[in-house]
Amino acid sequence: MLQTPETRSEAAALDLDDPLAPRRAAFALPEGIVYLDGHSLGPATHAALDAVRRGAGGDWAEGLIRSWNTAGWIDAPRRVGDKLGAFLGAEPGEVIVADNVTVNLFKLAAAALPLARAPEVMADGGEFPTDGYIAQGLGVVGARRVRRERFVPGETAFGGVLIKSLVDYRTAQVADVRAVEEHAAAQGGLVVWDLSHAAGVVPCDLPSMRLAAGCTYKYLNGGPGAPAYLYAEAGLAERMSTPIQGWFGHADPFAFDSDYRPRPGAARFATGTPPVLSLVALEAALEVLDGVDGEALWAKAGALGDLCVARLRALGLPLESPVERRKRGGHVAFRHPEGYAVVQALIARGVIADFRAPETVRFGLSPLTLSFAEVWDAMDHLEAVLADKLYMAAAYQVRATVT
Amino acid sequence: MLQTPETRSEAAALDLDDPLAPRRAAFALPEGIVYLDGHSLGPATHAALDAVRRGAGGDWAEGLIRSWNTAGWIDAPRRVGDKLGAFLGAEPGEVIVADNVTVNLFKLAAAALPLARAPEVMADGGEFPTDGYIAQGLGVVGARRVRRERFVPGETAFGGVLIKSLVDYRTAQVADVRAVEEHAAAQGGLVVWDLSHAAGVVPCDLPSMRLAAGCTYKYLNGGPGAPAYLYAEAGLAERMSTPIQGWFGHADPFAFDSDYRPRPGAARFATGTPPVLSLVALEAALEVLDGVDGEALWAKAGALGDLCVARLRALGLPLESPVERRKRGGHVAFRHPEGYAVVQALIARGVIADFRAPETVRFGLSPLTLSFAEVWDAMDHLEAVLADKLYMAAAYQVRATVT
Repeated sequence: MLQTPETRSEAAALDLDDPLAPRRAAFALPEGIVYLDGHSLGPATHAALDAVRRGAGGDWAEGLIRSWNTAGWIDAPRRVGDKLGAFLGAEPGEVIVADNVTVNLFKLAAAALPLARAPEVMADGGEFPTDGYIAQGLGVVGARRVRRERFVPGETAFGGVLIKSLVDYRTAQVADVRAVEEHAAAQGGLVVWDLSHAAGVVPCDLPSMRLAAGCTYKYLNGGPGAPAYLYAEAGLAERMSTPIQGWFGHADPFAFDSDYRPRPGAARFATGTPPVLSLVALEAALEVLDGVDGEALWAKAGALGDLCVARLRALGLPLESPVERRKRGGHVAFRHPEGYAVVQALIARGVIADFRAPETVRFGLSPLTLSFAEVWDAMDHLEAVLADKLYMAAAYQVRATVT
Repeated sequence: MLQTPETRSEAAALDLDDPLAPRRAAFALPEGIVYLDGHSLGPATHAALDAVRRGAGGDWAEGLIRSWNTAGWIDAPRRVGDKLGAFLGAEPGEVIVADNVTVNLFKLAAAALPLARAPEVMADGGEFPTDGYIAQGLGVVGARRVRRERFVPGETAFGGVLIKSLVDYRTAQVADVRAVEEHAAAQGGLVVWDLSHAAGVVPCDLPSMRLAAGCTYKYLNGGPGAPAYLYAEAGLAERMSTPIQGWFGHADPFAFDSDYRPRPGAARFATGTPPVLSLVALEAALEVLDGVDGEALWAKAGALGDLCVARLRALGLPLESPVERRKRGGHVAFRHPEGYAVVQALIARGVIADFRAPETVRFGLSPLTLSFAEVWDAMDHLEAVLADKLYMAAAYQVRATVT
């Protein structure tokens, strides 16, 4: 495990031996910015920008309808799903790219309900809000009871459908997948994992899960609002009926059958026509992960996080994230009563981080783009901002950024 | 009403007086193609291509997370919804851009079920297949009965949720909105209209409807798989609970409330983060409709269609579309036992049309891009293909294009 640097030159020395450092060149990052917001919107790769230009100016404008075949659009949801699935440890056919993470979590949870022992759904009140909203929405279409509680492995009595994040959006706490899966399964329940804050920075180990979904615009760098993915364990998928039956999930979409027959595997959860321009960006964005494994990403994100943790503790700031590296995802969060203003003051100095109400500041540590020296410098900026109360000038602005 | 041209020079003369002709220049159409497939994938405008380039290379790559505010991404689903809504006759707040048409029809139908007198859903077996699949899927989440029947105003006994196309995807037959709405309402039912094959070529008159959704990649030229829209009459929306509750539909998404509170109006039906690159293309694509009204579009599409109808009848081809202009949407369909091969032979001659199994050929007549002379020439190509049986060479290929 890498030693936490105690000086800038020690940080810079780590960069010299960083096996991921060369991948930075694949990104089209602006000059003069330290980007600590890859956990919210990952930056663009040159490959993704090229793919969008080609997809719009070439395949759409010139190829027109023919591009559904000639540019491979028609197979893209499954092709990109398989590419992403391979990175996350799934078998071909177990992952599909479709819709956004909200819709995917809904489909999985609704389809899991009839298979669970109890027709109930649960999400921790501290979960990413949408995950709780989805649980509430399921009350509209079939769940007999919606519980907003913390599911504690070995304790909570619950045999329904649990919606749970692998990495907590606020604290970056990593859940114990096996303990949760085992406790749920022992009671006849099913877990739908939200991998949004995990994929691309923490190994997701899909074979240890049965159902999962996640967004692709954070550490997977798929682009703003890029289509999400959905994983269903092969054997389980065959027993599931999606509530949203669309022609992209049909076994033979061009037969124009009047009856719905699901595709095999996760592809049954595709709905309608996918947003192609966003999808081609995602496909190209995933190239930067070729030959990289999840452990290597987590190791570097963890080391960058340790650097942050050490500097934040030296500044006396109350951490929200776990100190222990193996319990922490890709970001480090702390509280500050003027957190919003602190983030604004950092942005003014070229350090882009984010804020979550009421007083959480998050530093996202994308291992493909950040160097140890940059993160060191960002902590210097934070120190200066706090020392001089530079954030007070921004304290009266009221604006928010997006998760 | 324009006279149907009987010679190419009469056709060319109509082009000279066509008030929509100047809009053709807004499109980036390839040379040497007559594009009769705008009912499937509308062509790109220069404005849309510019918007994608700016959205990807500028706002994403350079602006990064800041672009959610600075580039207006965060408000885009409502802003673009209102722009499209104004074109279709809706009030601000009644239209939102979100998801794809499959997901939007699902949300509306599921949310309408508890408000209908009978917990049933109906779609004609001859409807666009997805609309029927959605009805079937609702059986998974609450509809007590799914009926696949033709809803005949004045006859069919049904007080549930009807899913119905304004323009039939195969024949282009235009439904009688008022008759359907009145007969449904009289029985305590609700209608969810699918406007996919109508918007941009037939006036949709949203005030005569209560619930509707549609895609934007056909006559609205939003780009491949561009996000869809959803309309809910203002008073009705307030009584509806969407089954898919996501943070984009929350009254205050940045409060990170643990409880879901819907936004006012149609915006409650937004789900998660929208596909921004596809959405900015759509927003720019709609500019070409500024100052154009639905009647003008329909008048030209109808006149182009009359030209097709006359030529197809002269060739003795069995029409699937209504002869009467006011009963016909933006395309003209006919049957041919080697329809697929005929379409391939036309494509080889630069005329792009499409085929729907088992033997329907469709000519889409986008009024913003097509001239009367082009359509005349396309019919000459068809005549040549049929006369010489040029399609036989293509008859053994088995590929399909996309709706």
